[in-house]
Amino acid sequence: MAQGRVLVVAATHGNERNAPWLLEQWRRSPQLLAAAGLELQLEIGNPEAFAANRRYLDRDLNRCFRPDLLTDASHQEREVQRARMLLAEYGPDGRQPCAVAIDLHSTTSAMGNSLVVYGRRPADLALAAGIQARLGLPVYLHEADPAQTGFLVERWPAGLVIEVGPVPQGLVTATICRQTQLALEAALDTLAAAASGRLCLPQRLQVHRHQASVDLPRAADGTPLATLHPARQHQDWRPLQAGDALFWHADGSALGFSPDDPEACWPVFINEAAYGEKGIALSLCRRESWVCSPGWAEALAELLLP
Amino acid sequence: MAQGRVLVVAATHGNERNAPWLLEQWRRSPQLLAAAGLELQLEIGNPEAFAANRRYLDRDLNRCFRPDLLTDASHQEREVQRARMLLAEYGPDGRQPCAVAIDLHSTTSAMGNSLVVYGRRPADLALAAGIQARLGLPVYLHEADPAQTGFLVERWPAGLVIEVGPVPQGLVTATICRQTQLALEAALDTLAAAASGRLCLPQRLQVHRHQASVDLPRAADGTPLATLHPARQHQDWRPLQAGDALFWHADGSALGFSPDDPEACWPVFINEAAYGEKGIALSLCRRESWVCSPGWAEALAELLLP
Repeated sequence: MAQGRVLVVAATHGNERNAPWLLEQWRRSPQLLAAAGLELQLEIGNPEAFAANRRYLDRDLNRCFRPDLLTDASHQEREVQRARMLLAEYGPDGRQPCAVAIDLHSTTSAMGNSLVVYGRRPADLALAAGIQARLGLPVYLHEADPAQTGFLVERWPAGLVIEVGPVPQGLVTATICRQTQLALEAALDTLAAAASGRLCLPQRLQVHRHQASVDLPRAADGTPLATLHPARQHQDWRPLQAGDALFWHADGSALGFSPDDPEACWPVFINEAAYGEKGIALSLCRRESWVCSPGWAEALAELLLP
Repeated sequence: MAQGRVLVVAATHGNERNAPWLLEQWRRSPQLLAAAGLELQLEIGNPEAFAANRRYLDRDLNRCFRPDLLTDASHQEREVQRARMLLAEYGPDGRQPCAVAIDLHSTTSAMGNSLVVYGRRPADLALAAGIQARLGLPVYLHEADPAQTGFLVERWPAGLVIEVGPVPQGLVTATICRQTQLALEAALDTLAAAASGRLCLPQRLQVHRHQASVDLPRAADGTPLATLHPARQHQDWRPLQAGDALFWHADGSALGFSPDDPEACWPVFINEAAYGEKGIALSLCRRESWVCSPGWAEALAELLLP
């Protein structure tokens, strides 16, 4: 059984260096992290990619947790093997089972200190709502995106991503470390409250629900013909209006924002360096305010109660 | 003979994406770049590393232009071979000889729009002084550093690096592109003036002369025990005083700046992501103001006059 233990993963992407630096400090000095009495498993997600300071070696580890990939023996990429290993060791039915996975990421986008939740599992929503009540962090609800699936935390009974930026790949900065630790400690405090049956959720959870991703304009051979407009750089979470400058050509001319859905105007992951290869210049969300259900806290408590 | 032609190199480091994006736009639309009538050779420095979006594959190309490496047949790393190829094609005695090399770089440090000059060749100093007179860019004079040698531009009769930041590796941003193009156009305008015998230098050139590099505090196994202090992030070109917070431990405590030489207080390349592996958290300079010698402009003109 997975009861109680919390898996904390750093460097699922090997060139996101802040969380693994912190993790190394916490291993050396456990008193540095306020664990709220929880039993933690601290783990480097992709040690080989971390050693190489690359996002991944064969395949993005945080897109490898698809059931079809995990069970298809023809897939022997290093990251697929690593995903199987992490599940065999720390998955809900693993040798050292964990009930919850917190996956620590950083981004070149100005996401600030933020959360990414995949889908609408009640326990995930309870955890996100608890963190939002403590720190006010914005939530990107990444769902209904067939182009991006197989995220690590989806294979644990509950979990979410803490996503902090902007910070270059390959770089540790103190501010990003402090934000990461604050968000993790708020998550652990929320989980400890759930484990003791005293988790009190706020009335509402604000989410930014994924609607679409937008690529740069490209030539037929794939060459980008424009780049993000300077007025959009580091403007994550700030709503776009029709006609706002979105892309910039080298001759100085702009291409405007032309929305399919005027409510899908909240941008996230603007100019994330790793998403160029995925054909994503930014993603667009609707902002919604959901009433927190008592069932969410119960679902999380059930996973954690001793 | 190398008379007249100018080599413009982008992506000497394959994950510095702004200059190669610009170069692709200039190739498609040559009128976008004000070339001041000069004949340019636009070249991707390290195409294989650029395709892989990595700084280098086997060895840092911008440390491969050491005469000993270039002539030692036992060195067959891909970047050493590429350095030989670039020289055979565009070197001063190459098939399509170029007199001057301008190497376009970007950095995660907040260097702004800046120049890097290696040593004190009169023609390089003329070029740097001409650009500084046009745009006021700061100059990092990188000399007397046995730990770092073999820079590309050193193998051409004249040349310098245009270094722009902060920008993450792997990312194109419009602001960095505009700064890069501005600096390059000022360089080309300076070279065109020299080529027509009408280069007028300012009275003085301000340089920041390299004195030393400083590494993070590390454990015996190499693990960094601290990171850059948040008060230092993005503070390139701002002088340090003894006792200023320099490094930051995960427990929040700071390590102060303790200078060997109080005048070597001007920091550059603070927290450059690629320099972690080189053991450099920042470099320290003295700021000096040099009288421009008439011989500098003459030396540059001699390379360019038809």
